[in-house]
Amino acid sequence: MPKLLLNADMGESFGPWVMGLDKDVMPHVDLANVACGFHASDPDIMRSTVRLACEHGVRVGAHPAYPDLVGFGRRSLACSPREIENLVLYQVGALAAICRAEGTRLAYVKPHGALYNDMMQDHDKLLAVMRAVAAFDPRLPLMVMATANPAPARKLAGQVGVNLLLEAFADRAYDAAGFLVSRRLPGAVHHDSELIVEQARRIALGQPLTAIDGSELRLQADTLCVHGDNPESIAAIRAIRQALESAA
Amino acid sequence: MPKLLLNADMGESFGPWVMGLDKDVMPHVDLANVACGFHASDPDIMRSTVRLACEHGVRVGAHPAYPDLVGFGRRSLACSPREIENLVLYQVGALAAICRAEGTRLAYVKPHGALYNDMMQDHDKLLAVMRAVAAFDPRLPLMVMATANPAPARKLAGQVGVNLLLEAFADRAYDAAGFLVSRRLPGAVHHDSELIVEQARRIALGQPLTAIDGSELRLQADTLCVHGDNPESIAAIRAIRQALESAA
Amino acid sequence: MPKLLLNADMGESFGPWVMGLDKDVMPHVDLANVACGFHASDPDIMRSTVRLACEHGVRVGAHPAYPDLVGFGRRSLACSPREIENLVLYQVGALAAICRAEGTRLAYVKPHGALYNDMMQDHDKLLAVMRAVAAFDPRLPLMVMATANPAPARKLAGQVGVNLLLEAFADRAYDAAGFLVSRRLPGAVHHDSELIVEQARRIALGQPLTAIDGSELRLQADTLCVHGDNPESIAAIRAIRQALESAA
Amino acid sequence: MPKLLLNADMGESFGPWVMGLDKDVMPHVDLANVACGFHASDPDIMRSTVRLACEHGVRVGAHPAYPDLVGFGRRSLACSPREIENLVLYQVGALAAICRAEGTRLAYVKPHGALYNDMMQDHDKLLAVMRAVAAFDPRLPLMVMATANPAPARKLAGQVGVNLLLEAFADRAYDAAGFLVSRRLPGAVHHDSELIVEQARRIALGQPLTAIDGSELRLQADTLCVHGDNPESIAAIRAIRQALESAA
Repeated sequence: MPKLLLNADMGESFGPWVMGLDKDVMPHVDLANVACGFHASDPDIMRSTVRLACEHGVRVGAHPAYPDLVGFGRRSLACSPREIENLVLYQVGALAAICRAEGTRLAYVKPHGALYNDMMQDHDKLLAVMRAVAAFDPRLPLMVMATANPAPARKLAGQVGVNLLLEAFADRAYDAAGFLVSRRLPGAVHHDSELIVEQARRIALGQPLTAIDGSELRLQADTLCVHGDNPESIAAIRAIRQALESAA
Repeated sequence: MPKLLLNADMGESFGPWVMGLDKDVMPHVDLANVACGFHASDPDIMRSTVRLACEHGVRVGAHPAYPDLVGFGRRSLACSPREIENLVLYQVGALAAICRAEGTRLAYVKPHGALYNDMMQDHDKLLAVMRAVAAFDPRLPLMVMATANPAPARKLAGQVGVNLLLEAFADRAYDAAGFLVSRRLPGAVHHDSELIVEQARRIALGQPLTAIDGSELRLQADTLCVHGDNPESIAAIRAIRQALESAA
Repeated sequence: MPKLLLNADMGESFGPWVMGLDKDVMPHVDLANVACGFHASDPDIMRSTVRLACEHGVRVGAHPAYPDLVGFGRRSLACSPREIENLVLYQVGALAAICRAEGTRLAYVKPHGALYNDMMQDHDKLLAVMRAVAAFDPRLPLMVMATANPAPARKLAGQVGVNLLLEAFADRAYDAAGFLVSRRLPGAVHHDSELIVEQARRIALGQPLTAIDGSELRLQADTLCVHGDNPESIAAIRAIRQALESAA
Repeated sequence: MPKLLLNADMGESFGPWVMGLDKDVMPHVDLANVACGFHASDPDIMRSTVRLACEHGVRVGAHPAYPDLVGFGRRSLACSPREIENLVLYQVGALAAICRAEGTRLAYVKPHGALYNDMMQDHDKLLAVMRAVAAFDPRLPLMVMATANPAPARKLAGQVGVNLLLEAFADRAYDAAGFLVSRRLPGAVHHDSELIVEQARRIALGQPLTAIDGSELRLQADTLCVHGDNPESIAAIRAIRQALESAA
């Protein structure tokens, strides 16, 4: 079984405000999605987060977002593809410099929140993000959502010359096309830890999931998104990690 | 005579607001100090400014500042050295990424406004800026003010491992120590274009200036700061350029 | 003929950046829509703009926007109605305080840019704006777009207890429903000054316009939006003003 | 004994980030200093904080600051008196509007962090704050630090036409002039709860404190600043409240 990497959002504190249990999460993940100052974080927090990642041998990814601190990058902002390309480039470069100062290299890019959702719905926006990543460094993979049909995203990536990392979720229900069921609908988020671990295991083994309509869903995934907001979620990360290692 | 490079602040527009006659200035300078989004500019303006510089073969420098758009980075902000180091690193990285997307490399760093003034008055702040530049790329020179005694700054630069570019001013009066006379004092700013061109010529030739107290002031300078705010200042740049070429 | 008031966006400079010819426009309008710091302006510019309005006996309106300086409030941001209500309240209060310091009273509210467009398309957002205005001061009218059928907006306004000022445009083409033709379509913006003045005159006299599909469009309007970006637009304002006075 | 009012900073969360135990503190204080969006808070948090204050019958004060979210308003920013006057006016107005929407009135103004410190050191800055408060509403008192000699501040207040609320601290050591000992010096902050309660009691009764140099310090104070950051500080507030009620 190819290893399913665990990724988590990190460095989402801002100025004097703390968010996330980064120190507790870092030992258990492979990839740290580090906020770049547009939806969270600031230069000091980016620096200490990258240092923490380095101490644990965790690879650092840029987590660029729309410029919306008060909305935490969760509100869609009607940016043009050109604007998206440049704001991704800006944030990626800022974090890459912090990485260099800490003696490491930026390893990948994963857009955040509304920007991530918007690029999965709009090929012009996805292309804009890809162009930014390729312009900065074509060896840098871009993390996008693993859906039932990754072919269109792969085709665009091939055109632009960027590699993809496909991301799946263990704690969310999927629709038949491999998109996440909206949080506003019942059953969208799994709260049962056994169910979460089982979904992680199936994704790691390439076994089909059951979509919300009862159909079989096969997802190819390189990485699994985990969360570190509270002690329960840290426990879930450990359980997933253990299950993946047993399955391996 | 070693060439005295002309540098000018560029890319100081912001969103819909335009500042500076960048297209008119760019053909006449060697170095473009490009704002990095903290006191002016945004990712789109940074991109188009870097492109403009490339079209004219002008080298691009980062022009980082305190985070103060409304005050245009001209108001001192009581940042710690650590905060200064990281905010310089962040801005330098952001612009370096834009440069890479436009097929060029960042060539130097010149702090802006109050940050520039503060680092010339406070060695801890100057060290913080130097550490940021060296951590990003030790080949990248840092532009600082040419004063009567550059030895202390050179010593710090040697310790940190960063090169200096010494900057002089043709349109400002100097005190005996080689610091600029405060704009609040009479005679601080030269408005006579012959006087400005003569001061530029003397700086280029290594000839002494007359400080405000009548004493002789010798400045070693690598570059001369020019401005492109209005048609008169563009004419001044052309006149300085012509005088320097005749003197060469 | 009831007077058709002229309104213009004002105080859209920001920090060191200047926008608009406020001093040239102010003598010719009745209502100044003053930016409140979220898409443009800052406390100092708000103060000087309100003072300028007072000197010319022009009424001051709040021009609240989404929080998006770099995008000048022109990009839609997916805010909830609750968020819209509170950000309007915040901006209205800030400008009202500035008015009080200059010895005048805030006279109305006109949302800006994407917020204005969004509220005209989404009744929940319009209600949110209305609730903010009514909560601040129910005597304060809210400026909304005059369309072919103002009944729905009037009904909502009646429910919330707020008065409306209906706004029309002399330099824009309308569709049959009384909405503006998108700027991306040909013929959306009138450039011919005779056409603009004639459209203003017809709106003032309650005469029908010809919509883009050739149909007759009747608009009830209290105020006409004019622009003061350049000398041509100032000339247009003078011409409209003269035509309206002749028609009266 | 005239009542010594307890005041606490509130509404210092920002967007998704939570700070302070406002719900636990509110029942025990008289005055809530509500952040106005420049160092902390946003329109939604201001609204819910004012509502919480109303539910507990607590008076709402504006807590304006320098524009510095990432530095939480704790870093001095070299603003002119004119800039300070207008940024205070802006923030006071914004919160006053939120108060009006919640059916209450703004009750006082207390500058935050570096702005508070700067105005206590610089009469031009204090005058600027006073002018803002008086321009908004001369009945609104301004909270300033109670020092050994309140005469200069009272004189300025009399000139501008604003009332003062003098604030003392129970958990900080004072110098002989009645200024707080810098946090960088040993003994600056009291951690012993009995000492804190005793200092509160002495201030309430008008009894002298012992300054850091051993001299007697008499402070006239209207209000005592308390903090609600953690469970220990809530316990301290309760103990102070109880001691003041016993002493009364």
